[in-house]
Amino acid sequence: MSSREEILRRVREALGGARGTHPPVPRGYARRLSGAEAETRADVLALFTERVADHRAAVRHVSADELPTAVAAALWGREAKQIVVPADLPFGWLAELEGVRALADTPLVDVETLAAVDGAVTGCAMAVAQTGTVVLDGGRAQGRRALSLVPGYHLCVVQADQIVGTVPEAIARLDPSRPLTWISGPSATYDIEMTRVEGVHGPRHLEVLVVED
Amino acid sequence: MSSREEILRRVREALGGARGTHPPVPRGYARRLSGAEAETRADVLALFTERVADHRAAVRHVSADELPTAVAAALWGREAKQIVVPADLPFGWLAELEGVRALADTPLVDVETLAAVDGAVTGCAMAVAQTGTVVLDGGRAQGRRALSLVPGYHLCVVQADQIVGTVPEAIARLDPSRPLTWISGPSATYDIEMTRVEGVHGPRHLEVLVVED
Repeated sequence: MSSREEILRRVREALGGARGTHPPVPRGYARRLSGAEAETRADVLALFTERVADHRAAVRHVSADELPTAVAAALWGREAKQIVVPADLPFGWLAELEGVRALADTPLVDVETLAAVDGAVTGCAMAVAQTGTVVLDGGRAQGRRALSLVPGYHLCVVQADQIVGTVPEAIARLDPSRPLTWISGPSATYDIEMTRVEGVHGPRHLEVLVVED
Repeated sequence: MSSREEILRRVREALGGARGTHPPVPRGYARRLSGAEAETRADVLALFTERVADHRAAVRHVSADELPTAVAAALWGREAKQIVVPADLPFGWLAELEGVRALADTPLVDVETLAAVDGAVTGCAMAVAQTGTVVLDGGRAQGRRALSLVPGYHLCVVQADQIVGTVPEAIARLDPSRPLTWISGPSATYDIEMTRVEGVHGPRHLEVLVVED
């Protein structure tokens, strides 16, 4: 008996009489935030802010008019000299940038450059308050996946109306055929001896600007 | 009898028996280009280019990859130092700009500044081959009307798939409730003694970049 056959034999034995049956999967998810979690729209935004901060990401609320200054200030604060952005990032977001060179990702920036720049600025498709998550789907102002995953610092602009309460609400509004990236705080893993290590498979630093009007 | 009454009397007299009737308005417009005008899609683009040039506007065809360089080259060619752009202009369009300061129109740039800058860069909503017209509707990458009407130079980026054959085709696809600006070459008038005067009510210079892939 080969190892393969032995493993399959053990799986079959473990399944026993259940083999081939389809047990019902409970679908009674909490699809919306409870009133206790968030009563008003302002509570939803506050919850998002709190949960993003729980993930050790920086988060700030700004008005649309303040956004260009806030983006510039965030980059100056990190002493960024060169960043990369999706080609269709709204020009106004970077209008106050002085002394920081922004590379548009067209033609595509090579991976060595992506790894060497001081950060990336993107928008998002949606954000989830309950989990403090931003979701990118490769749509407008987001660019391809490598943009937000390779550079060590990701500055993400979230419009207040992109924030929903729960993951099921986000799933209902997202297109599952798009390349979705779910970002809950900076990249981190506990794989190594249960020690938290940040920045293993993505940005070590995440900063979120919530635009409210 | 007052002047008003006298004028109305003459109008009524001129109308005679036709007064109050509604003569049928012929609606047999040429809704599409004839095969003689443009047989293929390439012919439609060629016709657009020819008609834009007829209006004494500069027109160039570029690939998406070449666009940032073409925008920069157009501005350098005019020795532009400062331009104004809609806040949501795709960042990549200006990615190659060196030595030209771009003002995003947020917060709104005042009219004195609009009149003083060296030009504006915008996209468009649609373009019409037969008449060599670009149409702005205030949507994405276009900004408010003053942006394209006040500065003396307007650089307009047209995606090839935004070009239709005829005005009726454009009308069918545009939203009549939006603030539409129809631009057929630089601003010009023959009001003054039938002498062509350019730049009276808008940009004296129009340049069009057609993006084809």
